[in-house]
Amino acid sequence: MKILIIGAAGMIGRKLTERLAKDAKLGHEAIEKLILADVIAPTAVRAPGIEIEAHELDIVSEDAVSSLIAARPDLVFHLAAIVSGEAELDFDKGYAINLDGTRYLFDAIRREGQEQPYCPRVVFSSSIAVFGAPFPDKIGDEFFSTPKTSYGTQKAIGELLLSDYSRRGFFDGVGIRLPTICIRPGKPNKAASGFFSNILREPLVGQEAVLPVEENVRHWHASPRSAVGFLLHAATMDTAPLGVRRNLNMPGLSATVGEQIEALRRVAGKKAAALIRKARDPMVADMVDGWARDFDAQRATSLGFVADASFDDIIKAHIEDELGGTLP
Amino acid sequence: MKILIIGAAGMIGRKLTERLAKDAKLGHEAIEKLILADVIAPTAVRAPGIEIEAHELDIVSEDAVSSLIAARPDLVFHLAAIVSGEAELDFDKGYAINLDGTRYLFDAIRREGQEQPYCPRVVFSSSIAVFGAPFPDKIGDEFFSTPKTSYGTQKAIGELLLSDYSRRGFFDGVGIRLPTICIRPGKPNKAASGFFSNILREPLVGQEAVLPVEENVRHWHASPRSAVGFLLHAATMDTAPLGVRRNLNMPGLSATVGEQIEALRRVAGKKAAALIRKARDPMVADMVDGWARDFDAQRATSLGFVADASFDDIIKAHIEDELGGTLP
Ligand SMILES: NC(=O)c1ccc[n+]([C@@H]2O[C@H](COP(=O)([O-])OP(=O)(O)OC[C@H]3O[C@@H](n4cnc5c(N)ncnc54)[C@H](O)[C@@H]3O)[C@@H](O)[C@H]2O)c1
Ligand SMILES: NC(=O)c1ccc[n+]([C@@H]2O[C@H](COP(=O)([O-])OP(=O)(O)OC[C@H]3O[C@@H](n4cnc5c(N)ncnc54)[C@H](O)[C@@H]3O)[C@@H](O)[C@H]2O)c1
Repeated sequence: MKILIIGAAGMIGRKLTERLAKDAKLGHEAIEKLILADVIAPTAVRAPGIEIEAHELDIVSEDAVSSLIAARPDLVFHLAAIVSGEAELDFDKGYAINLDGTRYLFDAIRREGQEQPYCPRVVFSSSIAVFGAPFPDKIGDEFFSTPKTSYGTQKAIGELLLSDYSRRGFFDGVGIRLPTICIRPGKPNKAASGFFSNILREPLVGQEAVLPVEENVRHWHASPRSAVGFLLHAATMDTAPLGVRRNLNMPGLSATVGEQIEALRRVAGKKAAALIRKARDPMVADMVDGWARDFDAQRATSLGFVADASFDDIIKAHIEDELGGTLP
Repeated sequence: MKILIIGAAGMIGRKLTERLAKDAKLGHEAIEKLILADVIAPTAVRAPGIEIEAHELDIVSEDAVSSLIAARPDLVFHLAAIVSGEAELDFDKGYAINLDGTRYLFDAIRREGQEQPYCPRVVFSSSIAVFGAPFPDKIGDEFFSTPKTSYGTQKAIGELLLSDYSRRGFFDGVGIRLPTICIRPGKPNKAASGFFSNILREPLVGQEAVLPVEENVRHWHASPRSAVGFLLHAATMDTAPLGVRRNLNMPGLSATVGEQIEALRRVAGKKAAALIRKARDPMVADMVDGWARDFDAQRATSLGFVADASFDDIIKAHIEDELGGTLP
């Protein structure tokens, strides 16, 4: 089978690419070709027996997207997006990439099918940012989308398009609302949610990290490994039970910052936990106040999506995947 | 004040225009100018003391929409849309008018405000078609949008844009999810929901009407008069309590077809009710099966929106407004 990953140079895109290259098959089907696309040139992976094609392109170009779809991939992962902070700062850019780019992709697939039947599986990475406070204690599967960011709005619109295009038979879509990915590997970034990862990732390698909120702040998390697991399950699951309701709250782990720190202490010791410096940032604290804290992701769970069991597991997975299995 | 009505030649647009022309004020403010726009030339109304401007234009032209907004109306009613059946038959046309046209309008307002502060009230006519079965017995204010038509999808996207643009301060938007308007005046049309009106409107003037579903079919209705009332309330209400949740389920009347016929019998007699001929249409029956039946529109009710009290009232309002107050 032929798989296209759009946003392949991103954090999740790279992890997904590596996993597919390593597995060399998806479900029962061998992978013949991986097409990687991103506005940043995707780095090649070693994958003996799989043809790898890398494209540096902007999804805000209709032609560029059409040219990717002309290869008629059997499966499309649409991960390209600019994130919350940037979409909030640059209104036009957010709508151009997250909305127009998504629509160009969906329409390219639709048009491709007008010439000759074509109905690929499309997996779309949505976000819990489609929800906006006030929330119930646990957000259920039928809770409404009232995003408080332009990013969340753009994801919610992508979801609606995904459902309608699937209902029409233009493709077979699954939208997965990812929890905040923790521990996000790499350097600390400017995302307001970054501290949830920073306070674990940095101390694990002996670096200090800043905690800008109270320890009782609760949030909804999944590891990068789980995120890749969700994507693969969305790519292979039976979509018949979804009907027109194509977008799913992914399962995750609800934890307070205090619980995260406890887990860090258990896995890496007191010294690591002591590297977290509290410095309340009222602006971050305010933003985080509007974010989802907990979910009852019954539907996705019953459809076979599986999340991390504990924050200890999340930290251990990070040590295995990013730190070669041992602490320095 | 200056008021722009887009979709002014439509059924609701005409009724709204007449009402504004008659009242000559909105809330406490005198109306100085009514700008009517539609792809079908809007018919002039008599409104002494109000300047009337009529534009025949297509909202799928960015320039046309911008030229309307250049007049900086204080209030914009966005009623233009192609309805469910047509948007389902012509995918491109539905997205062009109901999504792109709406976005052109919202962006024209945003751009107008970039030059010099501008933040009009925008009232958007959404629809209960943003919901798709299965439903709870009564749809609550926080139930999710999973439309089963492209029209419903386009309305749901319009709602999300309305909320985000309002949150950003580009305009002050209110989206109202109208129930099915009954009794729709005029000739029977091809809308699948048409029979809910036909079975009352036609017998009232001695004509036969066909009922394609069982009498136990329940649906959610409001009179054209109520719809105009909703629009005026949305135009004048305090929007502060809405926060970012700008879209409201309008109150309405939940009734079975049997209850509609009972009301007809009470208001117009047995002879009128006898003009309804049952001829089950499995296709219509099937579609109607997926439609919303009942709501608990608490939020809108507490915000002061008022619906019809009974189907007798709906029929009497039709007799007053459309038949000169008496039955033939
Ligand atoms: N990481 C999280 O916590 C999280 C949570 C919820 C949802 N998501 C979603 O998952 C997806 C992947 O997230 P991530 O953490 O890997 O983000 P990331 O920012 O690391 O990756 C996104 C990728 O999209 C690419 N991209 C941006 N604009 C593009 C354009 N115009 N054309 C082509 N490519 C473009 C970027 O270059 C980047 O490589 C995104 O859609 C994101 O919104 C992530
Ligand atoms: N009537 C109902 O039962 C009902 C229920 C829910 C929502 N609504 C919504 O209320 C609004 C008004 O409904 P209505 O019953 O008066 O419908 P209508 O069809 O009578 O009026 C819609 C008007 O929009 C105009 N229009 C269509 N495309 C246009 C374009 N490209 N540019 C400019 N004008 C265009 C049409 O010419 C028409 O005059 C619509 O948005 C509709 O979706 C109606």
